[in-house]
Amino acid sequence: MDPSSPSIDIEISEVGTRDGLQSIESILPTEAKKAWIAAEAAAGVPEIEVGSFVPARLLPQLADTAELVAFAKTLPGLNVAVLVPNLKGARAAIESGADKMSLPFSVSESHSRANLKRSHAQVFDEVGAIVAALKETPAARRPRFEVGLSTAFGCTLEGAVDEDAVLRIAERAVELGADEVGLSDTAGYGNPAQVRRLTDRIHAAVGRERMTGIHLHNTRGQGLANVMAALEAGLTTIDSSLGGIGGCPFAPGASGNIVTEDLVFLLESMGLNTGIDIGRLLEVRAQVQAALPGESLYGFLADAGLPKGFAYARPPASPAAT
Amino acid sequence: MDPSSPSIDIEISEVGTRDGLQSIESILPTEAKKAWIAAEAAAGVPEIEVGSFVPARLLPQLADTAELVAFAKTLPGLNVAVLVPNLKGARAAIESGADKMSLPFSVSESHSRANLKRSHAQVFDEVGAIVAALKETPAARRPRFEVGLSTAFGCTLEGAVDEDAVLRIAERAVELGADEVGLSDTAGYGNPAQVRRLTDRIHAAVGRERMTGIHLHNTRGQGLANVMAALEAGLTTIDSSLGGIGGCPFAPGASGNIVTEDLVFLLESMGLNTGIDIGRLLEVRAQVQAALPGESLYGFLADAGLPKGFAYARPPASPAAT
Repeated sequence: MDPSSPSIDIEISEVGTRDGLQSIESILPTEAKKAWIAAEAAAGVPEIEVGSFVPARLLPQLADTAELVAFAKTLPGLNVAVLVPNLKGARAAIESGADKMSLPFSVSESHSRANLKRSHAQVFDEVGAIVAALKETPAARRPRFEVGLSTAFGCTLEGAVDEDAVLRIAERAVELGADEVGLSDTAGYGNPAQVRRLTDRIHAAVGRERMTGIHLHNTRGQGLANVMAALEAGLTTIDSSLGGIGGCPFAPGASGNIVTEDLVFLLESMGLNTGIDIGRLLEVRAQVQAALPGESLYGFLADAGLPKGFAYARPPASPAAT
Repeated sequence: MDPSSPSIDIEISEVGTRDGLQSIESILPTEAKKAWIAAEAAAGVPEIEVGSFVPARLLPQLADTAELVAFAKTLPGLNVAVLVPNLKGARAAIESGADKMSLPFSVSESHSRANLKRSHAQVFDEVGAIVAALKETPAARRPRFEVGLSTAFGCTLEGAVDEDAVLRIAERAVELGADEVGLSDTAGYGNPAQVRRLTDRIHAAVGRERMTGIHLHNTRGQGLANVMAALEAGLTTIDSSLGGIGGCPFAPGASGNIVTEDLVFLLESMGLNTGIDIGRLLEVRAQVQAALPGESLYGFLADAGLPKGFAYARPPASPAAT
């Protein structure tokens, strides 16, 4: 499945392999991760965040990120994304050949210090240094650089987060040379009115082409309601996690990503083509559950099944096997 | 809390005491039901469907509906609703003093035969007979009569349901004298585009004042996304169930109502006043869980808690105790 296919209306960015695996105790073997990535790409998922270039002593679950990028790059048409916490991680991401790298920038400065061990000024310095490193990279090997606006909807440490602060950071990140910014509801505090308002404000401030994606959590069950607001605001890339595993391990009480299967069902049943074969996606879920026997997977569609007579927005290339 | 208060933006209609209790094995004692109804009314819930006037041999769980209506009518300002399957049930509802009664009309004729043991023609006859019975009732004792369009979004027996058929039944029910029609996603098949389209079409056909409410299920996790579409279409009454218990026992695979706690959190965080105190609502949930020790309750907010710094659309009269 070619993610740049004009037939895709909404692009799913699978983050279970990063946001999911960093949040659980189990360490999934590299071969099992490759099987997950390959199977989900084959089901039609156009983008997968395969890991994070953080020190292995902090997140041993993700120590094999470079190997996973190299593997994922062999899969036709897949957009290979990684998370990077700083310049060092960005250099590793560039070296790995990733197509996209995201730096989380916590709008809540308390959360920034807890999560990235850096003040806002220090993260801005890092953004500038990453942009400089990208300029030294040949264009053909240059990943797209996104600054993710973490805790944009509120923070478990600070509570409400000032929307003007979100705007200032988005504007400054783009001024410094980030290709894109993305809203991230790290703590699962967001509501649809807020998603719409913040997206509209950021679009007005930096241009619609500078923000196309959003990372929402389902901590309080509001994930898909928030997706509705994101769609209305014109966003076209939605992060989600197979089986809903994951969340942010540094934000106490925050857990639960949007479930990829439930999200794809929502979009397809509304007539929005994702290019994803839901039957095959449910098979990948079963495969991941088998590889992570001690972990809980979440979501509704896997239990309830597709409705009788369900019709895709556009039929997938290979009909669902289940 | 007065449900007709102009300060309420969206009216929650609690159906756990009917749709919930009819779907589970446990029979909740009448005194425990009264305690639930009283506590939820005290938390600010403006309408509660307290039971169903069906034969006790079919649903022994709801055999005490008349006593519950009488009790609920003593609670100030509460709108007391019941379900009625036929004329006999409607007569009992009128006799009981209920404020509102809903007759489920399955748009899927297969489901109608399975659920109500009646063809469409027979249910229309029943609607006509109920309207005649209401005309003989003094205006002050006349409950509002709603025809609920069950399986409007699809049916586990028939699959897709023709939207024109939904429209025809809505129009005919209003012609026959029903005060209102309501859309009901019995099988949890609905999607937001469909909610919006069907609501708009029914509003155009019978007038906005003839459809103000919707009954959505969360079988496939789409409940709150569908609520977003309902709000945009201008609906102002949303059914939900405390702890998400319930669903339709006659539709195989269908389970899971929208969770009242999660819905109220969605609405309040968007700035829509429900008049409900979420802390007290969570206390009612704990009370119901204690009264139903063998049953699973669902939802996210009860586990995750309110966000730090959470602000109501308008502060409730009595601050949250939790």
